[in-house]
Amino acid sequence: MGHRTEESMDTEEIAFRSLSSSNHHNFPHVHKVGVPPKQTPWKEFSAMLKETFFADDPLRTFKDQSRSRMFVLGMQAVFPILDWGRSYNLAKLKGDLIAGLTIASLCIPQDIGYSKLANLAPQYGLYSSFVPPLIYAFMGSSRDIAIGPVAVVSLLLGTLLQNEIDPTNNAVEYHRLAFTATFFAGITQAILGILRLGFLIDFLSHAAVVGFMGGAAITIALQQLKGFLGIKKFTKKTDIISVMQSVCGSAHHGWNWRTIVIGSTFLAFLLIAKYIGKKNKKLFWVPAIAPLISVILSTFFVYITHAEKRGVQIVKHIDKGINPSSVNKIFFTGEYLLKGFRIGIVAGMIALTEAVAIGRTFAAMKDYQLDGNKEMVALGAMNVVGSMTSCYVATGSFSRSAVNYMAGCQTAVSNIIMSFVVFLTLMFITPLFEYTPNAILSSIIISAVIGLIDYEAAILIWKTDKFDFVACMGAFFGVVFASVEIGLLIAVSISFAKLLLQVTRPRTTILGKIPRTNVYRNIQQYPEATKVPGVLIVRVDSAIYFSNSNYIKERILRWLTDEEEKLKRDGLHQIQYLIVEMSPVTDIDTSGIHALEELYRSLQKRSAQLVLANPGPVVMDKLHASSFTSLIGEDNIFLTVADAVLTCSPKFAEEV
Amino acid sequence: MGHRTEESMDTEEIAFRSLSSSNHHNFPHVHKVGVPPKQTPWKEFSAMLKETFFADDPLRTFKDQSRSRMFVLGMQAVFPILDWGRSYNLAKLKGDLIAGLTIASLCIPQDIGYSKLANLAPQYGLYSSFVPPLIYAFMGSSRDIAIGPVAVVSLLLGTLLQNEIDPTNNAVEYHRLAFTATFFAGITQAILGILRLGFLIDFLSHAAVVGFMGGAAITIALQQLKGFLGIKKFTKKTDIISVMQSVCGSAHHGWNWRTIVIGSTFLAFLLIAKYIGKKNKKLFWVPAIAPLISVILSTFFVYITHAEKRGVQIVKHIDKGINPSSVNKIFFTGEYLLKGFRIGIVAGMIALTEAVAIGRTFAAMKDYQLDGNKEMVALGAMNVVGSMTSCYVATGSFSRSAVNYMAGCQTAVSNIIMSFVVFLTLMFITPLFEYTPNAILSSIIISAVIGLIDYEAAILIWKTDKFDFVACMGAFFGVVFASVEIGLLIAVSISFAKLLLQVTRPRTTILGKIPRTNVYRNIQQYPEATKVPGVLIVRVDSAIYFSNSNYIKERILRWLTDEEEKLKRDGLHQIQYLIVEMSPVTDIDTSGIHALEELYRSLQKRSAQLVLANPGPVVMDKLHASSFTSLIGEDNIFLTVADAVLTCSPKFAEEV
Repeated sequence: MGHRTEESMDTEEIAFRSLSSSNHHNFPHVHKVGVPPKQTPWKEFSAMLKETFFADDPLRTFKDQSRSRMFVLGMQAVFPILDWGRSYNLAKLKGDLIAGLTIASLCIPQDIGYSKLANLAPQYGLYSSFVPPLIYAFMGSSRDIAIGPVAVVSLLLGTLLQNEIDPTNNAVEYHRLAFTATFFAGITQAILGILRLGFLIDFLSHAAVVGFMGGAAITIALQQLKGFLGIKKFTKKTDIISVMQSVCGSAHHGWNWRTIVIGSTFLAFLLIAKYIGKKNKKLFWVPAIAPLISVILSTFFVYITHAEKRGVQIVKHIDKGINPSSVNKIFFTGEYLLKGFRIGIVAGMIALTEAVAIGRTFAAMKDYQLDGNKEMVALGAMNVVGSMTSCYVATGSFSRSAVNYMAGCQTAVSNIIMSFVVFLTLMFITPLFEYTPNAILSSIIISAVIGLIDYEAAILIWKTDKFDFVACMGAFFGVVFASVEIGLLIAVSISFAKLLLQVTRPRTTILGKIPRTNVYRNIQQYPEATKVPGVLIVRVDSAIYFSNSNYIKERILRWLTDEEEKLKRDGLHQIQYLIVEMSPVTDIDTSGIHALEELYRSLQKRSAQLVLANPGPVVMDKLHASSFTSLIGEDNIFLTVADAVLTCSPKFAEEV
Repeated sequence: MGHRTEESMDTEEIAFRSLSSSNHHNFPHVHKVGVPPKQTPWKEFSAMLKETFFADDPLRTFKDQSRSRMFVLGMQAVFPILDWGRSYNLAKLKGDLIAGLTIASLCIPQDIGYSKLANLAPQYGLYSSFVPPLIYAFMGSSRDIAIGPVAVVSLLLGTLLQNEIDPTNNAVEYHRLAFTATFFAGITQAILGILRLGFLIDFLSHAAVVGFMGGAAITIALQQLKGFLGIKKFTKKTDIISVMQSVCGSAHHGWNWRTIVIGSTFLAFLLIAKYIGKKNKKLFWVPAIAPLISVILSTFFVYITHAEKRGVQIVKHIDKGINPSSVNKIFFTGEYLLKGFRIGIVAGMIALTEAVAIGRTFAAMKDYQLDGNKEMVALGAMNVVGSMTSCYVATGSFSRSAVNYMAGCQTAVSNIIMSFVVFLTLMFITPLFEYTPNAILSSIIISAVIGLIDYEAAILIWKTDKFDFVACMGAFFGVVFASVEIGLLIAVSISFAKLLLQVTRPRTTILGKIPRTNVYRNIQQYPEATKVPGVLIVRVDSAIYFSNSNYIKERILRWLTDEEEKLKRDGLHQIQYLIVEMSPVTDIDTSGIHALEELYRSLQKRSAQLVLANPGPVVMDKLHASSFTSLIGEDNIFLTVADAVLTCSPKFAEEV
């Protein structure tokens, strides 16, 4: 033990030892605060750029390769199918086949319903489940995502588009604007990926997304009351008040009891199927095929009873055949170019957020890496091609991806299978959907979007972070009581406000010494920690920038004033040293240095000395460059708080 | 010494000691990571609100006071003159009198010139130096600021206003819009102060302000070439290219040599005076009265030689008498209401930035506290009153405040003196300015704005922070080559980008043990620090939020991969423990916890254990609430890195 004690001595002791063997007035300390080797401005700048845009080092595999190998690697980077396709085998195909058929049976009725949310004819939903999944299968790197139209993006796109053009009176222009928006959504996604700006979507906080999704789910469900109750005159607004007025206003003459009976029967069936799938994970296929079964049963029922003649609304007509070209329909000039561009950016970003969140979730579950930026290029390419083949914005669907995963998909081949089934449907089966009652589609959508209301996440958010909860509820109520755009705006604003608040009002804490150690910690967290007499130790928990430098300076001075008042009351001696623990201060700018200078001067007027502990490399560099270090004196900068206390209050350090 | 060694033992030793007396497989540690007492959501929320909006605890003096006393204190809070006025004496008056007279002699010629930048008649500049300083003297808390029109705000206001209304063809409307903008500038300032949103102006970084001011100074100087060279046809644009084209295009017929001779003679005189004042601080009054002397001399010269008949442009006419009312001129309805509102917000914010910067600078020099929010209310009130008395936006002037300070001002009474002198000028002297040549005003403005080009600050910014320098130059070139608005937009955008970059790409560093201590530090900063075999120690230098949680997770995994590759090459054993030093992590949100969970799972798949060191109180609280602590195990959370290493690699801790 004795040997060990000798070896494991801490800095304080070493400092004390060298002290006792050197002069007593000038307290030396063994470890100088290091200054890293000076970098050239260009090197510094390029390091920052690399960390910002190439944090994942995407070119790593290209290092030290021959030309031809680099070409192959490049092709594989753009089309990952060339990479994983080579090791594809029958066992994988089996998994993909089952998964593909399952998600196809789920997507067909959903597509028909979702296209209504976008104010488009049913076949456009199917088109969007044919071409985009194919493109994605070649370019995407997620193995579990199921591509196609999704409820929230359909609703958002529908709302934004009908603000510009009326979808019933001006259908041709409306379609053209939809394809234009889809085109620019794809371009936005691809450009974000190519410019490696993928981190931009991280600015929408998880909490805000939870709130937004929940609100959108409620809005979508409310919209379904039209089909569900068989109401003919329905408001175009999406807020809960307008919708409820519409619903109640039509209560005594506008509801159709047959529609309600069909709708609620099948809704009950779907919800029970969902419950079964949730209780027993092996029966995941029950909720997955329930929608298709509902469609088949209800269509058959309407067909034989001719309920459509008694007010039950039906789909009526779906175009047969695969996607027609829509290249000529995209607005490349005129006033709608800009409008389509704007709508495309918004829809593209939301679609991206959803797809990347799904991709990341499943990648983490199967533990493979997903390159966010590459993913965006794939999603962008698929939407650009989609916009030219009569598709509207497609992305990864939460519900279908989960089914895909549970059905045992192995690769993106399941998307190809699904796409093929949709192709067969478009070629041969669409006329059979003629008698499908709208109420069924409404039931399917309601049962699908219920899963988006993630109240468990909301409860967890409430428990962990109250501010996050405000963001969540703000987005939720914004969508429900105003509109999707307002909800989205609230979500983005609150997200930004939180980030800015963090850099404006960073935490500062008073540190105390934990008894019988050399460790200095927050005295609020560790009540046993004791203050050092005559010394105030403050830790600043953030980079010191223009946005907070004044606050930090004034806050530290206020800590000092408070402390001195307390000491005065107790008749104790005043603070002689203010130690600022700089470990968490990752960076400082000119305003920050300015604030430190002002702090130093204010302290001098109160005859107290400013002492810094453990400034990081970047901070040390800048303090040197601005000659702040010579202002306060090099020997007032210490490696640790313990070292600083030893010099400021050797008696205390010795006593305890 | 022996006794001391016993007492000053560090945690590691204590841990080891208790280890040796307990079982060997389960390493206990003495100090648990503290969890602060649970707060109610409301308390937590109100503490956050308090720190954000009432960081300076403005109601502190009101505590435990009687009603009548509180009324007195309230009045004093709104009108600080009631407080400091009671201790005013003759000695102070002497200082204020001299300072007031000096700044008056400086402000009169400047006002006449600056009002031209705002495309207004000369008397409006004088009006703005009469009413606003009076109001400020009663409500403001800075003792050194000199209130009145300033160059940059005048230019900005002039540019923004003439984008809306032509000042020559539609003078009446132009004036009305100017007063409307001034009114809303004041309202903006007052509201920011009342709602305690003063921190918003901190979002404009020091570097951006330096660049913006420098660019504005050059732009203003270039504008003066019109008066200086006696050019009649001059561009309305402010960018350097348009102005130089205008100047060169009129070179062979549009320049007036008499004007140039007068202008350059007096410019030389002013610059020499400035130089004298700079060299000898006691002669500060030389540059202060030089402008007035120039005006008097040149006016006299033109009057006797009748140079105005030979093409030397003169002021011609200034309205006599004090400010007429302009209450009825403010647009409270119509399309210009919104435009005036928008211009007012921009001009008000810039004026505020300037005034608060000046106030803080001089408060720091004389070591008194300045309440930023109260200051804003005072500035806002003064501009609202100003807008009703034919003034345009006034604020604190850099140059005049410096003169005020050097002339020995004691209180805001110097502003009252100045205001009184301007009053006398308006009442009696304005007709005498008829023959003042415009060239003199241009010379005065050029010599005044030169001081705004703070190249020393720019050099310091270059030295300390390259990114700040980019912001500085962006704002500078934006103003010089495009326009003040574009420059301002660049300044604001770059400022925000910097803040957002900080929260998106926080620093992570690898720590090593500094020999013979228990201190773990950045191995780049301290090359002597050694890594612990089988353990990777990473410090995360930021709150973990949605904006960076993915990046942090992936960055840590990349550190791990890099390290493992290195170890594999060297044939050493793999990493078994990943210690994350959490000291700088001030906060975490649901996305952050999610990322930690994913990190934990990824590590488990690599059969490595996640260990946390020193999470702060807020983080600990949230980790508990989300039961992350039970996921990774409470005993994998340590007080210090040293404690964690002792458990993960007891052999290493023992050896070194």
